[in-house]
Amino acid sequence: MNRRKLLIGTAGTGVAAATFPMPAIAQDVRELKMVTDWPRALPGLGTGAERLAQKITTMTDGRLKVTVYPAGSLVRPFQTFDAVSTGVADMYHSVEYYFEKKTQALNFFAAVPYGMTATEFSGWIYYGGGQALWDEVSGRFGLKPLLCGTTGVQMGGWFNHEITTPEGYKGLRYRMPGLGAEVLRSMGATVVNLPGGEIVGALKSGAIDASEWVGPWLDLALGLQNAANYYYYPGFHEPGTAFVLSVNKKLWESLTPLDRRIIENACASDFTHMLAEFTAENAKALKVIRSDSRIKVLPFDEQLTKTFGKLSQQILADVAAKDALTRKVYESYMAFLSDAMDLEDTNDRAYLNSRRSALSST
Amino acid sequence: MNRRKLLIGTAGTGVAAATFPMPAIAQDVRELKMVTDWPRALPGLGTGAERLAQKITTMTDGRLKVTVYPAGSLVRPFQTFDAVSTGVADMYHSVEYYFEKKTQALNFFAAVPYGMTATEFSGWIYYGGGQALWDEVSGRFGLKPLLCGTTGVQMGGWFNHEITTPEGYKGLRYRMPGLGAEVLRSMGATVVNLPGGEIVGALKSGAIDASEWVGPWLDLALGLQNAANYYYYPGFHEPGTAFVLSVNKKLWESLTPLDRRIIENACASDFTHMLAEFTAENAKALKVIRSDSRIKVLPFDEQLTKTFGKLSQQILADVAAKDALTRKVYESYMAFLSDAMDLEDTNDRAYLNSRRSALSST
Repeated sequence: MNRRKLLIGTAGTGVAAATFPMPAIAQDVRELKMVTDWPRALPGLGTGAERLAQKITTMTDGRLKVTVYPAGSLVRPFQTFDAVSTGVADMYHSVEYYFEKKTQALNFFAAVPYGMTATEFSGWIYYGGGQALWDEVSGRFGLKPLLCGTTGVQMGGWFNHEITTPEGYKGLRYRMPGLGAEVLRSMGATVVNLPGGEIVGALKSGAIDASEWVGPWLDLALGLQNAANYYYYPGFHEPGTAFVLSVNKKLWESLTPLDRRIIENACASDFTHMLAEFTAENAKALKVIRSDSRIKVLPFDEQLTKTFGKLSQQILADVAAKDALTRKVYESYMAFLSDAMDLEDTNDRAYLNSRRSALSST
Repeated sequence: MNRRKLLIGTAGTGVAAATFPMPAIAQDVRELKMVTDWPRALPGLGTGAERLAQKITTMTDGRLKVTVYPAGSLVRPFQTFDAVSTGVADMYHSVEYYFEKKTQALNFFAAVPYGMTATEFSGWIYYGGGQALWDEVSGRFGLKPLLCGTTGVQMGGWFNHEITTPEGYKGLRYRMPGLGAEVLRSMGATVVNLPGGEIVGALKSGAIDASEWVGPWLDLALGLQNAANYYYYPGFHEPGTAFVLSVNKKLWESLTPLDRRIIENACASDFTHMLAEFTAENAKALKVIRSDSRIKVLPFDEQLTKTFGKLSQQILADVAAKDALTRKVYESYMAFLSDAMDLEDTNDRAYLNSRRSALSST
């Protein structure tokens, strides 16, 4: 792929950048371009990319100067993968499911329906063989991937009417990306993927009946509470959406071991900070949502849960059948998930239920 | 307090260290002493301290050379707080509840019964006002505290008999540290705090009836599965025990902003890695424990849960009454916890229950 084809011609920075080899090297300062799929100021995501870039720049004492290019400023949204793969940009901050057309294996490094939570996923990546598989998948595209954040559990979404049975999904017009969308499609829903900025209008006009986005914090920022009255949980389709910093592999290998360690630790550090921020901000935002008596915050019905579960398992198995590497990733992921689920029966799940029961009577 | 009094006279390093001002400065390399309350090779804790020290040394390119002194090698176990406060050592890697005699407020920065999970706690520390309060509490002792790890949810413990009612705790001889011990005491138990290495012998000999330690990974390493048959969950007394790197404040203020940022990010990075490691290793170890038909892995009875809950709330309120700063910490902690609990009803708790229900029939 030609570098120039990826660049946005109208953006001055893009044109200028294309006329020089990258990364630019000047007086011991190496300027690195981080492209993202977020608007600059988007809470959590855009601000998360900025925070990570700042950490790398600061901790390398400016040897690496990381500049963030928000969605559309250097390359078009979702062309971030190709841009870094071909060396037009140096690294992308994004979510791997946006690039599932490259290989479906990438879904397992973002979020899959009824998959791992944020903490479980970090266990698989760092201590369960996940990183080696991710390196293998991304390595085929000349990329070095690093886990650098998570939203935690997302919400099921906003509906303009109550929904209690699987039959209710027939003909439902729903906004959802990724493999969760396949689950809904197999239930008869018409699933579309609208950019965040168009969801509220589409819900209000009746063009769609329902939409997921992220969770209380970002949903409130988008104004979804003004467009629908029913807010369902949990987001079975995205139980711990992972963010990636994916670095051009040749660039990665040209860095000093010291600077590679700093980038790795900046990413692991931002995993902590992003999840902490989502937890604190979601708690505040949910309180606002619950205080509005018009909005009903409801769990998905048990019958729906069973249907989502069965179809999720089928769709993941179908994805695994695509190719040998995807199957290898799937098998490692599912084995870790199975053990993690057993652990949760005595761990977070047991504790959170116990605490709710213990403190509700006092 | 006299520096020499804290040092272990028999340890060569300790004696040598006491004869020079600290931190030692030689050729731009600043040697920093990290004292811990763990044996060097203790999985998770000792190895976690080593990993954190290595991160700081590596990322500062050796400008700061952090040497780990395991429990008892420079100062006696649990004298780590005084050692860093007085400048005998530069930083400690430990858990704040060991130092509750300094001020009970420190319990809220370690673990309290039916308190926050690891992720909730990180939300409070980084985005809920927790760090400012921690700085205020530790600052009174000349310390700068940083969150640097967590065990996640712990287990309730090993019992040599089944226990189903609150009355069963009357006269029970139980090993447990911290505020959880106060809960059991108020139920009539005789609570002792034995070092890890003595628990198995005490359980086998019948000197104690029950003991908690950490969770499957570390319990198995200690051999607790050979000393008792009943393994109860969840550990209501330690739902997300936090690790701290507490730095001598004068030293902290003498560091460059760059090196302070590196230490902060090394700590946030190790929070991710330690929780990931506990998750992966606990899942493996629980599988081993469950495969032994002699061992019964059981939830605490509902009636017990209610009793634990009621007493936990009372004990935290009693602690809050100690002094104004402790009350301020308690109020901030409890307000964040209350919002976090409401969030969990749609977040981790909702998802983990939904996933278990969705996937158990397929």
